[in-house]
Amino acid sequence: MCDLLRINTDRGFMLSDGKSRFSINGNPINHFLGTSTFSEYTVVHSGCLAKVNPLAPLDKICVLSCGISTGLGATLNVAKPKKGSSVAIFGLGAVGLAAAEGARIAGASRIIGIDRNPSRFDEAKKFGVTEFVNPKEHNRPVQQVIAEMTNGGVDRSVECTGNINAMVSAFECVHDGWGVAVLVGVPNKDAVFMTKPINLLNERTLKGTFFGNYKPRTDLPSIVDMYMNKKLELDKFITHHLSFSEINKAFEYMVKGEGLRCIISMED
Amino acid sequence: MCDLLRINTDRGFMLSDGKSRFSINGNPINHFLGTSTFSEYTVVHSGCLAKVNPLAPLDKICVLSCGISTGLGATLNVAKPKKGSSVAIFGLGAVGLAAAEGARIAGASRIIGIDRNPSRFDEAKKFGVTEFVNPKEHNRPVQQVIAEMTNGGVDRSVECTGNINAMVSAFECVHDGWGVAVLVGVPNKDAVFMTKPINLLNERTLKGTFFGNYKPRTDLPSIVDMYMNKKLELDKFITHHLSFSEINKAFEYMVKGEGLRCIISMED
Repeated sequence: MCDLLRINTDRGFMLSDGKSRFSINGNPINHFLGTSTFSEYTVVHSGCLAKVNPLAPLDKICVLSCGISTGLGATLNVAKPKKGSSVAIFGLGAVGLAAAEGARIAGASRIIGIDRNPSRFDEAKKFGVTEFVNPKEHNRPVQQVIAEMTNGGVDRSVECTGNINAMVSAFECVHDGWGVAVLVGVPNKDAVFMTKPINLLNERTLKGTFFGNYKPRTDLPSIVDMYMNKKLELDKFITHHLSFSEINKAFEYMVKGEGLRCIISMED
Repeated sequence: MCDLLRINTDRGFMLSDGKSRFSINGNPINHFLGTSTFSEYTVVHSGCLAKVNPLAPLDKICVLSCGISTGLGATLNVAKPKKGSSVAIFGLGAVGLAAAEGARIAGASRIIGIDRNPSRFDEAKKFGVTEFVNPKEHNRPVQQVIAEMTNGGVDRSVECTGNINAMVSAFECVHDGWGVAVLVGVPNKDAVFMTKPINLLNERTLKGTFFGNYKPRTDLPSIVDMYMNKKLELDKFITHHLSFSEINKAFEYMVKGEGLRCIISMED
């Protein structure tokens, strides 16, 4: 992980001189997350630039900038399910569906989607999810339900919710001896991960990941190539197209949430 | 992990007929941990037998039966430190020293031993430990002390105490991005492992292990060979020799603890 350039929401300026490159009516406007891409032109540190295939359509590959790559990499780079194995995905938002897409690409034979919103299940089939568990429909912990479905536990689990209870369930639903759980969600600052250490003694592994362990500058071009080679399907992640002038509407959709994955917002 | 034969302190009989093979004055005596080796002759399930090099001295290799293999394997099979890397070992009893011995064999350049008993530090040098931290000498968490010593954290840590606080420290003292912490100690049944999930988000890995991930029947012969090839030094683990008739004295030494590692107790 790069200490110099890693995501820092408090750093609103360029590293070289500690100043901003944006202004309005003479007042500086801070940079956002090192990229400031909610604008037609931007200035970024060279370490935040990645050169990708020039034939790739920018109105599609822009969704690779954060959550989709994170979910995809969490499965392909961190969980690394073997062909024919079982994978549980906690949370079927855009990140979870990308994790499922990764499991599909890796050749997992069972992809179990866990979500409290059953309206997401039908769409999730497009991303390779084969079975669904709604924790609200069970009066016992979801990790027990999954253990019963899979003769002791799944081979891999990927948590994409940010909810601390889902993180614990994701760890406790993997099989003793070889199970690997990967935590992707960004937790609440006050949340505490708690588990019985016996679960670790039984040879399970717990891993975290940031941006799916992809190094943005080095690895983003290869994810774009995965799309260009039709291995990765991006179009199904995009549910809305809005013009740039409607960007605030996009934020409204995001807050509302339901049925939404990625919004592409481009200049009119 | 073998569901059939894994260690079960409640199963005091043979699997085939649910009966014991030991008795005294007509009363059955239960089997112990599947081996019952505190006797001159024993009866065990064939799955609990391992065929080792017949030239190996039994009064030395008997120490491989549990803790030494566990500590050694925790480092060599699970933590897998690279040559030249840094390793923190929590607890410098026999298991922790075996974990250090594993780090030495793997070629780690810094092996930091953590123990609340400084009388153990001198002996630990024989096992490759290069630096020592006594948590009692610091008024801040030991993981902070280690992070300061190692520019952000060690590459690997191995916890060999069974103490839940040491487990948390072992996880929190590894470096973001690549650090791996391995929990070896058997925790109290009521203990709960707690950490801030942000530590996982920063690409650390937490692993547990049982018997150092060695499969006893398959892998014990190779550990014996490691000793016979002088790669693994076993003699330094043995601090006491007692005759079999003094076995209760051995238990007294164990309870007392101080300065003790392995006791070899053989027929007079």
